[in-house]
Amino acid sequence: MSDTPGIVITGASGRMGQMLIGQVSASDRVHLAGAVERAGHAWVGQDIGVAMGGAAIGVFVTDDPAAAMKDAQAVIDFTAPEATLAFAKVAAAAGVVHVIGTTGMSDAQITGLDAPSKQTVIVRAGNMSLGVNLLTQLTKRVAAALDADFDIEVIEAHHNQKVDAPSGTALMLGEAAAEGRGVALADVSDRGRDGITGARKRGDIGFTAIRGGDIVGEHDVMFAAAGERIILRHIASDRAVFARGAIKAALWGQGKPAGAYDMLDVLGLND
Amino acid sequence: MSDTPGIVITGASGRMGQMLIGQVSASDRVHLAGAVERAGHAWVGQDIGVAMGGAAIGVFVTDDPAAAMKDAQAVIDFTAPEATLAFAKVAAAAGVVHVIGTTGMSDAQITGLDAPSKQTVIVRAGNMSLGVNLLTQLTKRVAAALDADFDIEVIEAHHNQKVDAPSGTALMLGEAAAEGRGVALADVSDRGRDGITGARKRGDIGFTAIRGGDIVGEHDVMFAAAGERIILRHIASDRAVFARGAIKAALWGQGKPAGAYDMLDVLGLND
Amino acid sequence: MSDTPGIVITGASGRMGQMLIGQVSASDRVHLAGAVERAGHAWVGQDIGVAMGGAAIGVFVTDDPAAAMKDAQAVIDFTAPEATLAFAKVAAAAGVVHVIGTTGMSDAQITGLDAPSKQTVIVRAGNMSLGVNLLTQLTKRVAAALDADFDIEVIEAHHNQKVDAPSGTALMLGEAAAEGRGVALADVSDRGRDGITGARKRGDIGFTAIRGGDIVGEHDVMFAAAGERIILRHIASDRAVFARGAIKAALWGQGKPAGAYDMLDVLGLND
Amino acid sequence: MSDTPGIVITGASGRMGQMLIGQVSASDRVHLAGAVERAGHAWVGQDIGVAMGGAAIGVFVTDDPAAAMKDAQAVIDFTAPEATLAFAKVAAAAGVVHVIGTTGMSDAQITGLDAPSKQTVIVRAGNMSLGVNLLTQLTKRVAAALDADFDIEVIEAHHNQKVDAPSGTALMLGEAAAEGRGVALADVSDRGRDGITGARKRGDIGFTAIRGGDIVGEHDVMFAAAGERIILRHIASDRAVFARGAIKAALWGQGKPAGAYDMLDVLGLND
Repeated sequence: MSDTPGIVITGASGRMGQMLIGQVSASDRVHLAGAVERAGHAWVGQDIGVAMGGAAIGVFVTDDPAAAMKDAQAVIDFTAPEATLAFAKVAAAAGVVHVIGTTGMSDAQITGLDAPSKQTVIVRAGNMSLGVNLLTQLTKRVAAALDADFDIEVIEAHHNQKVDAPSGTALMLGEAAAEGRGVALADVSDRGRDGITGARKRGDIGFTAIRGGDIVGEHDVMFAAAGERIILRHIASDRAVFARGAIKAALWGQGKPAGAYDMLDVLGLND
Repeated sequence: MSDTPGIVITGASGRMGQMLIGQVSASDRVHLAGAVERAGHAWVGQDIGVAMGGAAIGVFVTDDPAAAMKDAQAVIDFTAPEATLAFAKVAAAAGVVHVIGTTGMSDAQITGLDAPSKQTVIVRAGNMSLGVNLLTQLTKRVAAALDADFDIEVIEAHHNQKVDAPSGTALMLGEAAAEGRGVALADVSDRGRDGITGARKRGDIGFTAIRGGDIVGEHDVMFAAAGERIILRHIASDRAVFARGAIKAALWGQGKPAGAYDMLDVLGLND
Repeated sequence: MSDTPGIVITGASGRMGQMLIGQVSASDRVHLAGAVERAGHAWVGQDIGVAMGGAAIGVFVTDDPAAAMKDAQAVIDFTAPEATLAFAKVAAAAGVVHVIGTTGMSDAQITGLDAPSKQTVIVRAGNMSLGVNLLTQLTKRVAAALDADFDIEVIEAHHNQKVDAPSGTALMLGEAAAEGRGVALADVSDRGRDGITGARKRGDIGFTAIRGGDIVGEHDVMFAAAGERIILRHIASDRAVFARGAIKAALWGQGKPAGAYDMLDVLGLND
Repeated sequence: MSDTPGIVITGASGRMGQMLIGQVSASDRVHLAGAVERAGHAWVGQDIGVAMGGAAIGVFVTDDPAAAMKDAQAVIDFTAPEATLAFAKVAAAAGVVHVIGTTGMSDAQITGLDAPSKQTVIVRAGNMSLGVNLLTQLTKRVAAALDADFDIEVIEAHHNQKVDAPSGTALMLGEAAAEGRGVALADVSDRGRDGITGARKRGDIGFTAIRGGDIVGEHDVMFAAAGERIILRHIASDRAVFARGAIKAALWGQGKPAGAYDMLDVLGLND
């Protein structure tokens, strides 16, 4: 019906599933081809638009992933590890791109994706935001290009309900900086600066955590030398960016050779 | 000769003294009327311009403060407590405005300024920067205007040689926020955030310290609520701002009634 | 039932009405006491929670404002001028605080609020965001405290669908700066800087407009001198801040003498 | 005497020359090996430290570049095109790295460097700041990685004496963004936004210029999409960064094959 790629969403009733359905429906570069829920779920058989409390859109929730994927080009899957392994087999058989945002997969479970990735494109990432993936790559490159005359600081701000500091993403950025510089983060990490700290130690990577209001997530990587600073900044203002990243991955995977990929491949930054 | 107020600088050979002479000479709203050094100093008798390594400007360094102040309208004094007390008597007798940036004065020494302040205008402040004084006042007002739905964070950045965190100015800003909110800073201060901190405690005032390069001094006071943030920011990029604040104070004091004032009076913010 | 003030929302089915109902329901300092729609509206008689597509909350939509306000303490009203004038009479008779966010009222219509404001508290403002109101007041004060050594720049960023530049709020901030400095904005406004502009004219107030993505609204007022800058920044990340401002106004009005007020009164900044 | 590379500075009495001498002297990775001025200059024969108004450092200003370079490893040269062409021949004969910050060279003059670059390493760049060169490269890469869902804005801030807007560096960043995206900047440039502009045109690259105080130079390249933003920022706070970049180039060139290089080579970013 449409000449854009058709996307199937798994876990359609969940918070992320509904966000994905909204984003796919609103896009003019893909269209919603199917919505999958587990057998027995109350939404199975309903129009997904109606089930979500809106107008009918002509796509009905199904508990048969193979049927949903039959005429689709990709499946976007933010569910749970065991479900994802099952979907991977179906996607491989159907030859559709499988975009996986599922977290918490064990090494054994990840190995379980080897066979399906021989048959189709699998894109898997812990964070589907284009911006954060790009920032991580840039951080590594800049840290490699600059010497320790540039002090590195990772500064993040999040909402007041966040329980850990620094954020996982801040630590990931710190790891990228350390890798770029050829050191181990554990050897140079400077966290929780307070009191009589003495002068900053050359080569350290500092972390600071700001908390307040409902800030979704902001990350700065600052490289500060005498007389100049470079700051790489990412601001997330809407959690929908994860859905948008997944759609980009689904589009990117069209026509690619079968294999296991991540968001850096999608962005053309895996060098 | 000039119809702008004439300024005398004490401690003329010191780092701050030379900066003051440079700033006063460059201003078109005041002119340099005298330069004072202690008896026996090598510069006494020399043209101050030449002594500083430049061209002659027709003002000679003297060890006689009374002579220097005779035809001046103000004296700017960043020296030491005992010297400042002596200069205060001379300034009072001469009827010139006495701007004091000297730090480390004891309570007893400050009391020693009571008598001279009956005879002339004295402006004294620990930090002569217009911006920081203004930011402190704004912080107190905003904290008073907003309730604890707004999380307060004080974020500062300084050069990599700074040995303490947070900065004294950050703590001063935190005190102003606490005062505005009617709480004691010690009861709500949240410093060195790191690890599993739990959610932010309502009413806390957080501090974070960024260190890198040669940053002169940057301070943010953030008030963050759901959906909006107010940020009061000060950026110092040149230590000359302290000299500029002193000149402003000297101008402000012209024609004012004798008394003891601070920079908030100069800025019209003492309410 | 609850010991918090009860709030009635007018125009309950509209975009702003629904946001207000959500915010009032979620607050622990007020509770929802009533929801008003015009006679004949499909929602009249329904539980407002159900009508909005969620769970029942025990408050039924009515077309009788007097009945809705009978046991309430305030009414929040973002409707249309004529409706607001009618609500003002009902609120005055019921003795409840009337918070008005309605825009586009003519001078004559505003005069129509004089009589009701003799009987009850009316708080009216074109922008209910605490932050923007506060920023405006701060801008005026800072502009009055600093001289033209400080260059003033108003910098704003909005989403890519905005059709005018600079934003109305940026112009309001510029007006506040000009008023603080005692000049007419029209005489000093510098907009659309591009090409060979020559050096910046002393005393000018500059405006720049950044456009991109879905930025809700960010405003900076920068005061830049040699060696230091003060920046007053407001970031709106959620349009719900307008609803929050209205609730604050409703709470503030409790127990106040009858009269006409604005958000600066609510914030204690009308000096 | 020292085991660090020895550096010769040409145009030693000039503003940039003196800054270079100060930076080289202060570095622990290079040492000052010579200072060159034109024949007849008053400083020739003097100790360069004394000539600059400080203490003697044992390096005497000479008008014989060949003698100065004889035992050196590099020459840093911010002079004028004809002088630079002459120095290039001497450097080539001496086999020392020639770092050229001279601007305003014609194409013919640049061609004149071909022969010397066969014999030694020449590093030439219009802007020696590490940060700006790096930011330009990052901008091109990010623009290539992201599609036009990301609106690109180049925002710059400079001191109030700057006469053109946007800055040359901002335009260079815009060119890099356009190149990354595969478009011509002239086709998509949006400058001087003011008034009723209509919605932002997809694919445009916007420029805004902030002017105030003594800001040395700040550049942001913002990529803004729905829900997220990436910002690449450079802050120059001291013109000494150009000297630092030149020293880095001199060090990098040690042991490299003869040839013509630029700062992107020095940074390892020329890909």
